Amino acid sequence: MNVQKTLDALKARLYEIHDLHVAAGVLQWDQETDMPPKGAKARARQVATLRRLAHEKFTSPEIGEMLQILEDQGLPQWDPDSDEARLVRVTRYDYDRATKVPSDWVKAFAQLTSEARVVWREARARADFALFRPYLERIVVMVREYAHFFAPFDHIYDPLLDRFERKMKTAQVQALFERVREGQTRLLQHILSRPQVDNAVLHRHYDRQKQRDLIERMVAHIGFDLERGRIDFSTHPFTTGFSIDDVRFTIRIKENDLSEVLSGGLHEMGHALYHQGIDPKYEGLPLGRGASLGVHESQSRLWENLVGRSRAFWQFFFPWVQETFPENLRDVTPEAFYRALNRVEPSFIRVEADEVTYNLHIILRFELEIALLTEDLKVADLPEAWNAKMKAYLGVVPPDDAKGVLQDIHWSQGSFGYFPTYALGNLLSAQIWNAMPQELGDLNTFMSRGEFQPILEWLRERIYRHGNKFDPQELIQRATGQTIQAEPYLAYLEGKYGDIYG
Amino acid sequence: MNVQKTLDALKARLYEIHDLHVAAGVLQWDQETDMPPKGAKARARQVATLRRLAHEKFTSPEIGEMLQILEDQGLPQWDPDSDEARLVRVTRYDYDRATKVPSDWVKAFAQLTSEARVVWREARARADFALFRPYLERIVVMVREYAHFFAPFDHIYDPLLDRFERKMKTAQVQALFERVREGQTRLLQHILSRPQVDNAVLHRHYDRQKQRDLIERMVAHIGFDLERGRIDFSTHPFTTGFSIDDVRFTIRIKENDLSEVLSGGLHEMGHALYHQGIDPKYEGLPLGRGASLGVHESQSRLWENLVGRSRAFWQFFFPWVQETFPENLRDVTPEAFYRALNRVEPSFIRVEADEVTYNLHIILRFELEIALLTEDLKVADLPEAWNAKMKAYLGVVPPDDAKGVLQDIHWSQGSFGYFPTYALGNLLSAQIWNAMPQELGDLNTFMSRGEFQPILEWLRERIYRHGNKFDPQELIQRATGQTIQAEPYLAYLEGKYGDIYG
Repeated sequence: MNVQKTLDALKARLYEIHDLHVAAGVLQWDQETDMPPKGAKARARQVATLRRLAHEKFTSPEIGEMLQILEDQGLPQWDPDSDEARLVRVTRYDYDRATKVPSDWVKAFAQLTSEARVVWREARARADFALFRPYLERIVVMVREYAHFFAPFDHIYDPLLDRFERKMKTAQVQALFERVREGQTRLLQHILSRPQVDNAVLHRHYDRQKQRDLIERMVAHIGFDLERGRIDFSTHPFTTGFSIDDVRFTIRIKENDLSEVLSGGLHEMGHALYHQGIDPKYEGLPLGRGASLGVHESQSRLWENLVGRSRAFWQFFFPWVQETFPENLRDVTPEAFYRALNRVEPSFIRVEADEVTYNLHIILRFELEIALLTEDLKVADLPEAWNAKMKAYLGVVPPDDAKGVLQDIHWSQGSFGYFPTYALGNLLSAQIWNAMPQELGDLNTFMSRGEFQPILEWLRERIYRHGNKFDPQELIQRATGQTIQAEPYLAYLEGKYGDIYG
Repeated sequence: MNVQKTLDALKARLYEIHDLHVAAGVLQWDQETDMPPKGAKARARQVATLRRLAHEKFTSPEIGEMLQILEDQGLPQWDPDSDEARLVRVTRYDYDRATKVPSDWVKAFAQLTSEARVVWREARARADFALFRPYLERIVVMVREYAHFFAPFDHIYDPLLDRFERKMKTAQVQALFERVREGQTRLLQHILSRPQVDNAVLHRHYDRQKQRDLIERMVAHIGFDLERGRIDFSTHPFTTGFSIDDVRFTIRIKENDLSEVLSGGLHEMGHALYHQGIDPKYEGLPLGRGASLGVHESQSRLWENLVGRSRAFWQFFFPWVQETFPENLRDVTPEAFYRALNRVEPSFIRVEADEVTYNLHIILRFELEIALLTEDLKVADLPEAWNAKMKAYLGVVPPDDAKGVLQDIHWSQGSFGYFPTYALGNLLSAQIWNAMPQELGDLNTFMSRGEFQPILEWLRERIYRHGNKFDPQELIQRATGQTIQAEPYLAYLEGKYGDIYG
């Protein structure tokens, strides 16, 4: 078979696999937003069927044979940066990851985590870690097995991290997180010694429908294309895309907390802008998604925080909010609103954390995951270790395990290696932000005039359009001139919160 | 392989195929209700992939081999009415239908009708039949080819009818429709000589949200389970089910026509009650759907008309409507409301037709389809033939082809043989209705008290729970003691409209 024919045949298979995953995605989105409650049982089987068929098709020997032909005959003749070369490399990477794991293990792990999720929910509801403990113990054993399918490795955590952040190494993350932990705990100590910011204005009563209309008008103004996307409600906000022309995110609204829709909405909009910005030629192929969880999170956090919690942003948008809720905000200044949205306060729950404390929640989890996998920590001792780190990093100890070690779904799903990508996203958000002014000049001037097009265009050109073509660190290097750094984020926090808290 | 193992293996394959079709259904439902406009291109490919994979899996030789084993070794030992025996028979029937058609034909037909649908929309918008003509000519040629894959047959139309109404023969439908046409044209003539019923009350202004809430409360009261279903909006109302625990229908609301949501909502509710009532043990198998389009339509029409356009029904429900819209209905009596909903008036458009004229629209199409397939009519002469029959049966002639021969999507999709099932459904609705009082007594007494449970239970027991286990005419014979008859429907119309129009 010649190279072009093989490439076409490979693409045809990849489109098919992609369509099966997309279908599963639509079924899951539907389940979160629209499905009648009793539909869950049949839906679980339907999604499992689609994922299984996609997995079978992707791990079939034919894919391996096609890749081999393209590596032998295509790569030597192609520009290494061409779409063809990169498609083959990324697909090979995914293929090796998928085929190194025996299907018996995959099946057993799916079974275990499916049961574990149910037990975890029960355990969290009862704040009873002992219920969940035996499941987590079995999950840790299986996750260690998983890592060993990828031996040899420098660190047992490397293959887990690599699932979500291609080619990132544990040692590199450890070095970054050392400096982040030191810098953010110091900043937090300083803030806690200063008078607290008042955010009562956010907790007045805000009408649901008006909140929804407001966030839709805001994201449309910023650049989210509602002809190629939509906004829905769900219990836990998320973003999903069924093509670059159909990207959806969900929001959650609290009538007594306006910050919920503003931060959650702008966060998910960031993920959605990334997806809408991918080059259409990659649609349906492994290049047509974000480069990694960390890079994706850099965009949600950039729009949520660097943009959406900035003074300049609210100089433009506060009048919109004030007009929508005059009864609540007639007497409020843009500056007071800005400060309220940036109140810092240590809390038990990761997803409620502010910019200064968020990474500390992540670093705690990262350190505990590593200790479990290296067998330096037993699952039985996990709650105690959790609480000790909460005390050390955040100065607070949860009253029970529901607000502590049981709060996140990730471990019940076996998603070890996922948490660090949240903090990597934070670091990248500031690093990328700092690279823009060299070309664009002062970003605050744009934002205070409500002009987001230059920022969005820069991000599309340097990040979004490339999709998954480059490895994450290569993409960041190309966009910012450096691999991932901790300093820009720490400097951003110190500058901003030094100003707010004095 | 032993019989039980083969049966289990067949079921596993059938579940898989079912899940692929369900996924395609969710994607299509999503497209109609929620999808952003520009998502259509990728969505078309996704749905096509799922349907193609399902078709490949179903027509694979393994299914044929498993059926052969079960026919040789299972059927001789099973009760002919057992679920096992019926599953094998229905699956064999579907398998033969699917494998007799060459995949090249399927591909070419899909391509042709996909283009034809686009051209038909354009032709209808411009009221220009000449645009659509060459496509319809090619479709008729291919539909004739399709029929010949099933030769020998008594009538070339038989294999088409059989697609939608298993084992129904053209000759039988022709005999039924002769009597219906004669009876309904005569009744219509009589009605047209009488003073017209006033329905202005339905065309006052009715708030959208209140209409939606009202229909939801009504269908929930009647027995549609909202824990196992939901109601959405779409341009063209339809019902779809992703499992018996997830059955959805859509409605269309007109602010100046209350009858739209009442008749459309109760119609789709009928389809949905049928699906929700299927025995859970058939879920995911070919037995777990309705017996035919005609039987399905009998249920939508039974609830829409026999129930939802009856005097007793509105004795109970009119106060609900009156309370919802006091400003419009304070001065209206239940009797006037009942009469308004039953106004008879010949019109050009099938989907807007009343009970007395609806079947005439169908019979016209049925006769034209047959004439095209037997080559007694050329496509070029179709508009003229259409208008002549409109004049003869309904006494009106459409002002242009958009309101005439171009009004329905069916022919552009190649769905010859589909139309008669609408009228068969009407006939069956009255026949089934007439079978109930032998066991239940007077149905009007129940309805006027708002008690629908006995009616629904009877239908579940006799029709719904059996799903697709029995051939349609066998099911009707079991439920009513007779195969399909025209008289009950004609008698129903004559009784009801004789009363209304005097």
